[in-house]
Order: sequence, then C-alpha cells, then structure tokens
Amino acid sequence: MSAALDKATKAELLRVAHLLADAARPETLRHFRKPGLSADDKSAAPDHFDPVTEADRAAERAMRAVLASERPHDSILGEEYGAHEGSTGLVWVLDPIDGTRGYISGTPTWGVLIAVGDDDGPLFGIVDQPYIGERFSGGFGLAEVTGPTGTAPLAVRRGRTLSEATVMTTFPEVGTEAEARAFHTVAHAARLTRYGMDCYAYALLAAGQVDLVIEAGLNSYDIQGPQAVVEAAGGVVTGWDGGAAHNGGRVIAAATPELHAEACALLRASLAR
Amino acid sequence: MSAALDKATKAELLRVAHLLADAARPETLRHFRKPGLSADDKSAAPDHFDPVTEADRAAERAMRAVLASERPHDSILGEEYGAHEGSTGLVWVLDPIDGTRGYISGTPTWGVLIAVGDDDGPLFGIVDQPYIGERFSGGFGLAEVTGPTGTAPLAVRRGRTLSEATVMTTFPEVGTEAEARAFHTVAHAARLTRYGMDCYAYALLAAGQVDLVIEAGLNSYDIQGPQAVVEAAGGVVTGWDGGAAHNGGRVIAAATPELHAEACALLRASLAR
Repeated sequence: MSAALDKATKAELLRVAHLLADAARPETLRHFRKPGLSADDKSAAPDHFDPVTEADRAAERAMRAVLASERPHDSILGEEYGAHEGSTGLVWVLDPIDGTRGYISGTPTWGVLIAVGDDDGPLFGIVDQPYIGERFSGGFGLAEVTGPTGTAPLAVRRGRTLSEATVMTTFPEVGTEAEARAFHTVAHAARLTRYGMDCYAYALLAAGQVDLVIEAGLNSYDIQGPQAVVEAAGGVVTGWDGGAAHNGGRVIAAATPELHAEACALLRASLAR
Repeated sequence: MSAALDKATKAELLRVAHLLADAARPETLRHFRKPGLSADDKSAAPDHFDPVTEADRAAERAMRAVLASERPHDSILGEEYGAHEGSTGLVWVLDPIDGTRGYISGTPTWGVLIAVGDDDGPLFGIVDQPYIGERFSGGFGLAEVTGPTGTAPLAVRRGRTLSEATVMTTFPEVGTEAEARAFHTVAHAARLTRYGMDCYAYALLAAGQVDLVIEAGLNSYDIQGPQAVVEAAGGVVTGWDGGAAHNGGRVIAAATPELHAEACALLRASLAR
C-alpha cells in the first residue's frame, strides 16, 4: 500500500495532517489551564482515572471537519468519536489530547496525535504540543521538529548501551503488576528513568534526547502518531514481543536495534517468570 | 527586613531579577537538546546521578555578572559557584538549571530559579523556563506568568480536599526510604500523583493546576525561587515539620492551609512510625 502512494498523494496527506494539527490547536488551548476544567470519568472502575475533557472532544470534531472537507473518502479512527469507514484504504488515526492527566495538571507534555496510514501501520505522523507551539512530524522521508527555537531535523541518538540509556514511561505503575515488574527490570538496568512525559517521551526519543520509551495498555491512537515520528527519525517501535506496534498494547520504542533487543530480552524474561 | 524595603528598592530588585532571568536564558538554551551535551557526575556515590552541564555554569556566571554590575553589595548564594558575602542584608539565591536530569533528557520542565530575600527567606522569586519562553514570578504584591499565550495572574486553587487533590514530586523515590514511604502515604490519599516536573511543579501549583508538591533533600537554591512564587500566588510553603522552608530539606508546598495541614499530618505520622 505504502509503495502505491505517488509523490503528489504523499504531499497531499502531509498537507492535510498539518491542517488537522492546526485545527486542533485552538480547541485544546481554549480550556488548557482555565478554571473549571471538567474531568469526566468515562471508566466504570473507580480506581481508573481517565478524564475526558470538552477540549478533547472539540479538538477531534475540528479535525474530523477538516477530513470531511479535504479527505472525505479516507477512513478515520479517533479516540472520542470512534471509527468511520472509508474507501481509499487510507486511515487517519487521531488522539485529540493524549495525556489528559497531564493536560488537567497543566503540564506541557500532552499532545495532539495524528497519523495517516493503512492496515500495516502509520506512514506519516505528528506529535503536536499546542501550548509550547511545538510540532514533531515524521514520514514520507521527512523527520523534523518546529518549535520556539525554529525548525530542526529529528534523529535518534546512537551508540548507547542499556547501562548508559535514559528510559521513559508515563507512570511508575506502567500497566498490570507483571508489566510493571518487567518495566522495572529494564529501568533498573538503565542509567536514568524519567516519568510523566506522556506522548512527549516519544518526541524526545525522536529528537535524540532519550533512548527508550516503554509502555503498556496503549490503544492504536496512542501510538500511531508517535510511532511514525520515531520511525522516521531512525528508531525502532514494536510490541514487547517484537511484533507490530500500531494496534497498541505493550509498546517499546528504542533509539537503536541493539537497545531494542537488549530491552525486549529483559521484558520477555521478566514476563516469563 | 522585608518591611524596611521601600517601594523604589522593591521595583529595583524586581527589575534586576528579570535581568538575571534574561541573562540566563541564552546560556541555558545554547546547549539544550544539542548533541554532545556533557553530564559530569559531581557526586562520589555511583548510584547518585547528579549531572552538571556547562550550561549550568555559564548561566550562573551570566547572572553573577549582572549582579556585579547592578547590585554589587548584595550577597549571592548560587548552586555552582557558592556564596559571596555582601553588606546590604539582601541575598540573591540562584539555581541556574534546576532539574538537570530533565535538562539532559530534553524535557521542558527544568528551570532557572532566582530569589532575592534576606535571612528570613525569599521576598521575590522567578521560575523561568527558557525553552517554552515562560516566566513565573511572584513577590512584592505581584504574582504572574508570562508565556506563549500572554500574561496571566497566578493564583492557587481553593476548596479541594486531599482526596480530590493532584500531588506532584520529581521522582517516585523522593528521598530516603522513610521519606519515600511518607510521601506515598500522601500520594495514596490523593486523587492523582504525577512525577517528573522538576521545579515546574511549583509553577503549576502557583498557576492553580495542582494542589501539592512534596519533596525531600532540597537545597536552599532549589526552593527559594519557587517558594516566593507559590507564596505570592496564595500558597503555603514549609518544611514537613511546619517550619521554615527556605533552607531546603524536606519541603511541602500546598494550595491551601487545610491541604497543608492534612498532608503534613500524614507525612509526620509516617515518619514517626
């Protein structure tokens, strides 16, 4: 599928992806750090805190309006409004606010995640941070960040072993108890572990600042945008089992194949115990 | 001492504080997210990772140069270059890059911390985030943030109990094992716990986004800038024992006296066990 896209189509998809990110920005910022920000709990489990804000919904509606106008025949999978079946074989995967806990805490580490791809995964993706005004994008031969200090190419860093690596994940709890144990075997072997960055962690990996991002319990819309950016910057993104990452679940993103192999071996050994 | 400062002196100190932050910005940004960023380990303990970068040193030199010119008779206490004894009774307390682990990981959560005060603590302070271009300041009757979306007043949020609160700290390990246990009794009672924000956590408290920041093992230069900003925004900053915070150690910052009392009681009960 990817090979079948001609140059004009790629340019068109890239253009529309940026239009989506542009459309989402004001909707996410309208409520960011404002008093009275609501945080509905859409989960039935009382200990599972997963706030959904009006900003989340408004940003996805704004992106869907752009797609209805610009790419009406593509499929859409969005966090808030579900799946829309198209006819082109292309699908837009949208997370209007990834990191809603970060959003309701005022941190500048949440993001608007956008990917366009096919059944085999994302071809182009964006991680946008509206408050900073920073956009990480990758795919179709491009990988770059545009932010407060200008535009710069994205490239993962090379040559670090796990004992020299910085690893990121959002919560120390990670996922299930077994998943958390597995994560901490890797964290223990790494030089530095940092929490709390939400999707921004993948952007930092693509920017050559950190070496591993390990998460569990992801949905496809949590990972496809970041995955495209990390892959375009030269990184490796798979499931903990080495399989495809674009459907979510347990995901590892690594700066190099060597680090990926080293961390995956630890994760699998821990899960097998 | 504070009462003895006239209006002109306060305006002068405020002006110089902003000059310091302006001087530090380019020095911190020169190395941020650049390849080859060095991270010396100034600690003897191999498991205590405390990187100091050239940016850290250059930013403090830039601030000291401003003080040498503008306030040559004030005292200085800086993280990198120690204490300079002045004659005015006023002291500038400087942390050129608070959150060096965040800095070397590329996160936008480190900050330049500046405070001016006397033996009783800070009177005016700044938490500056150069990459975002965001400055939180407070004292002398002012409390505001200037950033990508303009200038806004800072005020803590009111009316939340601990069970509704968001609590922040930088690392899940916090300090010693006993301090970590005490922290987690509070975290367990709170609604949401977030890690990884460095000094930015205090800025978010001042901005009414989170309710508690709890840390241990701080130095005076880690807390005086944030303390001034949080207090100016209406918050409470003390040691875990309720005493003065400006010399560092175990520090708690709370949005309200009620939350402060509730969290301190849990911290002390845990430490007493």
